[in-house]
Amino acid sequence: MDLQRLEKPVFIVDPRKARRNLEIMAAKAASSGVAFRPHAKTHQSAAVAEWYRPFGIDRIAVSSLDMACYFQAAGWIDILIAVPVNLHQITAIDALAGSCSLQVLVESETAAARLAADISRPLGVWIEVDTGYHRTGLPIEHRDRIEAVARLLVRNPRLRLNGLLVHDGHTYGAAGREEVGAIFERTLGGLRAALEHLAARGFPGLRLSFGDTPSCSLMDSFPAPISEIRPGNFIFYDLTQAGIGACRTEDIAAAVACPVISVQPERNETILYGGAVHISKEFVLAEHGAACFGRVARLRPDHAGWTDALPGVAVVSLSQEQGIVRGPKEFVDAVRIGDTLVVLPVHACLTANLHGGLFVLGQGPVSKFRL
Amino acid sequence: MDLQRLEKPVFIVDPRKARRNLEIMAAKAASSGVAFRPHAKTHQSAAVAEWYRPFGIDRIAVSSLDMACYFQAAGWIDILIAVPVNLHQITAIDALAGSCSLQVLVESETAAARLAADISRPLGVWIEVDTGYHRTGLPIEHRDRIEAVARLLVRNPRLRLNGLLVHDGHTYGAAGREEVGAIFERTLGGLRAALEHLAARGFPGLRLSFGDTPSCSLMDSFPAPISEIRPGNFIFYDLTQAGIGACRTEDIAAAVACPVISVQPERNETILYGGAVHISKEFVLAEHGAACFGRVARLRPDHAGWTDALPGVAVVSLSQEQGIVRGPKEFVDAVRIGDTLVVLPVHACLTANLHGGLFVLGQGPVSKFRL
Repeated sequence: MDLQRLEKPVFIVDPRKARRNLEIMAAKAASSGVAFRPHAKTHQSAAVAEWYRPFGIDRIAVSSLDMACYFQAAGWIDILIAVPVNLHQITAIDALAGSCSLQVLVESETAAARLAADISRPLGVWIEVDTGYHRTGLPIEHRDRIEAVARLLVRNPRLRLNGLLVHDGHTYGAAGREEVGAIFERTLGGLRAALEHLAARGFPGLRLSFGDTPSCSLMDSFPAPISEIRPGNFIFYDLTQAGIGACRTEDIAAAVACPVISVQPERNETILYGGAVHISKEFVLAEHGAACFGRVARLRPDHAGWTDALPGVAVVSLSQEQGIVRGPKEFVDAVRIGDTLVVLPVHACLTANLHGGLFVLGQGPVSKFRL
Repeated sequence: MDLQRLEKPVFIVDPRKARRNLEIMAAKAASSGVAFRPHAKTHQSAAVAEWYRPFGIDRIAVSSLDMACYFQAAGWIDILIAVPVNLHQITAIDALAGSCSLQVLVESETAAARLAADISRPLGVWIEVDTGYHRTGLPIEHRDRIEAVARLLVRNPRLRLNGLLVHDGHTYGAAGREEVGAIFERTLGGLRAALEHLAARGFPGLRLSFGDTPSCSLMDSFPAPISEIRPGNFIFYDLTQAGIGACRTEDIAAAVACPVISVQPERNETILYGGAVHISKEFVLAEHGAACFGRVARLRPDHAGWTDALPGVAVVSLSQEQGIVRGPKEFVDAVRIGDTLVVLPVHACLTANLHGGLFVLGQGPVSKFRL
């Protein structure tokens, strides 16, 4: 593929940046003595997941049963479906548990009782707790309910209760190391108390699976009771993470390369063949309060990645297949119809999800899971 | 598929509502004596496009060359790619023009010159003009440039200059018949003047292709110089169109059915297996200014569609695979883990795009184009 003469938008990955992001996180996990279970929902690609292996990574998290089946078929053995169990997939979960070391999440007595009743093969289970994100999970202060779920699970000897799992998604509303660190300390305090309670009530030695890219990027170490970390987005990063301070813009390892189909110099705008179905409608707020659906860079020649994000240039509007890029006059004056522009994504996971495959610079197209 | 026991989120279509939406629009086109070219990007499905045929519809618009190839393979002959030509697809356009009556869009001298130089097979061309949306298109007041593009095109006898095409996307920022009507009148005035100018300069008899669902839904007739209408979204409609006043909430013919995986009564919330990758992050603002990513209904039994949108119940947050639904206590108290909830989409086109297929109530799964 000639990236300078694009027939259509393409999701591109700079493997050097991705591997460096991976290396930093793997080193931090190793120095803390915790296991590293990257969340593969970010790229959804067996080819990209192979980059994990040289770092000794032998376990992944995924966000759906179908995605677990995809990675199992690609040779992964230890797979955690990091979304609370859907009652109507328990039969299918039981089937997949026969061909890999599968782990699931529960956060209700209802789901725990159903798993205990219906699972016939060895299955690892984590109890999801909520320490402030307020999506799914048993509230961390509800120790009686957490204990009740644990008791329901251990009724079935094929279920292995691994411990507690938390995703501190509220770090996405924080800015910088200090705010994320405050959430981290509060979370650890709550989790320690909950694990002590469980130990005292007959469930000693439970582990803790800890998630979210902002915390894992900004914290220097992962003390007890954390036994594994589960970040996903860090391999690519994006403008949301840069806004939190979890990465620099130049660490972003994925982007969408788009051909220019129109130049509108009177409006200081250029229009991409590349819209909501290629980039996603996730946005960050720019300094002046307007929505920014992506920052813009130029391709470097010979698959050598892309330039720094161009100052003052942003995707300001997205329709289904087209995006409007606005920038300073000097930028627009230099853009020609047929040029390629590179859009750094606001949320790399959602952007990758839109594409049927990824193009790895210097390597070529690789396939990925599709919903 | 048992919609009451869902393994995963599914995009569902109520064919009675869709056919009624289609019938109303077809009748309006017929009574105005204009051709009707529905935009198939909304559903991207050959099976749904078959519903057009009983209304005598023999032409469609699509939003990419790949989508044109998909519908050509499904038996459509007269296909308009309603996005300005990408210079790097001209060879592929020329190839497809050999197997159907293909039409494309140009809005620059650059693209017109390249088409004139490189097209070897009969190809219809529309010049896109901008009457206020400010995405692509030659500004309607730039008559000299419009004429220059026309002159470039007719250099190549295989190019058939059909006329002008407009998409008044700024109607999406309007509310109600009066505001949309004002845009409509302004647009028609500008187009008449431009067509008169072109006629006087040697391009008589050019046609006008007119788009956008809000205008086509809210205007009662399509006077000259309109010769064809090109709405797409109207077949499904969505909360955006309901907000503009282009439809009623009960006209919405597509939705995402999602299983409930968590109930959080303390927060008056229930959590869906169904997130940004199933619903899309497009939102409307609710009365109190918060983002609403969908309204919520209950399934009726026996594939008889869904109830009216439940008052005060909305999808208030979406992560990759999960959505948070908030509603009154009585609603949350009645929801059980494992139930199915129906999410009415904010932007049906983007929601449909996320799915590999559609489930037509009373009929079953049908396939669709994928990016």
